[in-house]
Amino acid sequence: MRLSRSLLPTLKETPAEAQIASHRLMLRAGLVRQTASGIYAWLPAGYRVLQNIARIVREEQDAIGTQEMLMPTIQPAELWRQSGRYDAYGPEMLRLKDRHERELLYGPTNEEMITDIFRQSVKSYRELPQMLYHIQWKFRDEVRPRFGVMRGREFLMKDAYSFDLDYSGAVASYRKMMLSYMRIFQRMGVKAIPMEAESGPIGGNLSHEFIILAPTGESEVFYDAAFEAMDFSSGTFSHTSDEDLERFFVQMTTPYAATDEKHDTAAWASVAEKRQGRGIEVGHIFYFGTKYSEPMGLTVAGRDGSKVVPHMGSYGVGVSRLVGALIEAHHDDAGIIWPDSVAPFKAAILNLKQGDAACDKICEDLYAQFAGNALYDDREERAGVKFADADLMGHPWQIVVGPRGAAAGKVELKRRATGERQDVDLAGVLARIG
Amino acid sequence: MRLSRSLLPTLKETPAEAQIASHRLMLRAGLVRQTASGIYAWLPAGYRVLQNIARIVREEQDAIGTQEMLMPTIQPAELWRQSGRYDAYGPEMLRLKDRHERELLYGPTNEEMITDIFRQSVKSYRELPQMLYHIQWKFRDEVRPRFGVMRGREFLMKDAYSFDLDYSGAVASYRKMMLSYMRIFQRMGVKAIPMEAESGPIGGNLSHEFIILAPTGESEVFYDAAFEAMDFSSGTFSHTSDEDLERFFVQMTTPYAATDEKHDTAAWASVAEKRQGRGIEVGHIFYFGTKYSEPMGLTVAGRDGSKVVPHMGSYGVGVSRLVGALIEAHHDDAGIIWPDSVAPFKAAILNLKQGDAACDKICEDLYAQFAGNALYDDREERAGVKFADADLMGHPWQIVVGPRGAAAGKVELKRRATGERQDVDLAGVLARIG
Repeated sequence: MRLSRSLLPTLKETPAEAQIASHRLMLRAGLVRQTASGIYAWLPAGYRVLQNIARIVREEQDAIGTQEMLMPTIQPAELWRQSGRYDAYGPEMLRLKDRHERELLYGPTNEEMITDIFRQSVKSYRELPQMLYHIQWKFRDEVRPRFGVMRGREFLMKDAYSFDLDYSGAVASYRKMMLSYMRIFQRMGVKAIPMEAESGPIGGNLSHEFIILAPTGESEVFYDAAFEAMDFSSGTFSHTSDEDLERFFVQMTTPYAATDEKHDTAAWASVAEKRQGRGIEVGHIFYFGTKYSEPMGLTVAGRDGSKVVPHMGSYGVGVSRLVGALIEAHHDDAGIIWPDSVAPFKAAILNLKQGDAACDKICEDLYAQFAGNALYDDREERAGVKFADADLMGHPWQIVVGPRGAAAGKVELKRRATGERQDVDLAGVLARIG
Repeated sequence: MRLSRSLLPTLKETPAEAQIASHRLMLRAGLVRQTASGIYAWLPAGYRVLQNIARIVREEQDAIGTQEMLMPTIQPAELWRQSGRYDAYGPEMLRLKDRHERELLYGPTNEEMITDIFRQSVKSYRELPQMLYHIQWKFRDEVRPRFGVMRGREFLMKDAYSFDLDYSGAVASYRKMMLSYMRIFQRMGVKAIPMEAESGPIGGNLSHEFIILAPTGESEVFYDAAFEAMDFSSGTFSHTSDEDLERFFVQMTTPYAATDEKHDTAAWASVAEKRQGRGIEVGHIFYFGTKYSEPMGLTVAGRDGSKVVPHMGSYGVGVSRLVGALIEAHHDDAGIIWPDSVAPFKAAILNLKQGDAACDKICEDLYAQFAGNALYDDREERAGVKFADADLMGHPWQIVVGPRGAAAGKVELKRRATGERQDVDLAGVLARIG
């Protein structure tokens, strides 16, 4: 994109309403604009980040055999009466009526709907196990929305649901999902740690939160240094091998890890290599057995013809929340430092002398080579403004094009994460950045 | 995907509520399930089609320099009071209140919101022209929703907005969009014809509907045979050349084309080569000048420092509606016939003897080669059921694997669109299908 003709409105001043780093930086870098309390429009650069995050989630969910689908945002109240949650859910549920006075709601989650669809469609044990997910906007009518997209009212969530014939099958699905989550967060350049969670009102006896480490995170976390060296890239564990899944799960759940709310000082004392930091919850997985399938009458014919009530689990990732969380994990005083995998653009091309024939030509050529993956700062602005905005927006690479370098056929590359700079021959730019 | 473990519930019976071909076939082929009146969940195969359509729209909108963003589904009523549309809009607008009794609505379109965002962000003539789009769910509270996703209440639309300094700039944007639309529909394997439309309550003096030809379409259309031979693939017209845009626009608007509502028998009489058929509206573009920018106070500083009120246009494509419309254009008595570009899977692999070692091995190998782009019918079902379901689901290719062919290292390929069958060596399958 050409910055001069783009909706990328950077701000010099810090908006007064923003209390945390990610909220401030998302507004200042022109990623989002608030359109109502806790509701945001995603401007072009912000939407590219959101899409990159969704793409990684999608690829890793697909990789373990989860099927993508899409359930609607508006749900009938009737469905939630069947599970008993319509009355139990408080004022955070956005309730509405259509023109015929039928009661509807803006879905905060989809256990009831997926159970309903599944019971209409699946009849036999031969069709199980199955895992399904969707990436859809949800609504949670917070009393006091704040922290930008970290705690918005309309938010994008990936929620997945598993259906198994029995407890042991459900445990296998749960472990696959945990592995998929560790791969998702690793690909986004953050360290995530699963921490045992209360199952709470949702019931069941297996539940983990995923906390990513970020210096400005919302909660204090205590964990074993063993988590630091772990690697989950494909090849380390196979999601189709029971042995691998078992080994993975033991590795995940044996070392100590807890947020301050659950911190157990006695257990902590015996940890050999202690680590303490701050973290942000970005995912949550539950096994809840027959909590929905039972009351909603979901059964399949078992091997012997008897009725079997499937065991279910649900698995959430806060997709829009992650945009904020990744910024909390990756920023400095000058702005955002995007991990390569989610950055809106691979590089920004900074033309230090807009209108200079040699500089313009080099920039246009480079811009064409990047085929949409670079942001070209072609504004008639001072170099200082362009440097500051590029740092603020957090592009992994800056390609600085000035008249002196242009005469020598060179540009300067700056790596945002390290601040490292190097002069590079024009022909070598693309190869260097990759 | 493996059909035995997928949420692809095909139906033998035609659901009583479905009155038109696409609605019947979408239910029977397991693409969608209704979750409330006029509201649908997209099951895995249906969602793949929806995503393919959205991808083509996205690529062609990006190609003419339209920036993708995402505006939220829930909007404040206040914004619509500024344009005067809050009271003007009838009961089709889904109105709601949050826990603080603030008036909100589920957006049916986004002129107000984009104008608001633009006026906060863009200050100078140097930043224009710009075009922006988003692909987002909308809600229109129809009295009697029907025809499946063709006239649903919660529906997916691509809406784009253009901002220009003056009328002639706006006309150029309008023509670019028309070109983008012709490319979109051509890539989806349908013939689209732009027909002059009344601007109606939205105002302005340039407006076209895009009607795609379909034998079971909703309206009668009359058009000049000249439209049949037109080609819009990239290379035919450049969106950056004013001359090309002019030539394109003349070609689009000179030959006769009208729906029965607007049919002009006098003009029709003079058409040399007449064509008559049925069609479905799938897109609509408007130029509406300063209808929103003026009352909402959007201005930018002009070249001479004076305030300029930008001229705007809006451009819609019914993304979820297109799934139904493409089926209306491409089906027969046996089921759907997907154009290759939007099909949920390139091919279905039909194992005629599940459990036979040779057949199973060939199928598994082929399935692995297609890397997710094939549906493997691995159910323990009779061949007749598999043939019927593959025809119903409309995969462009069927790869039929039976014991006799397996022994000879051959499979049978069936092209759904023509019914043509051929025996192919195993090694040549992927090359043949591409």
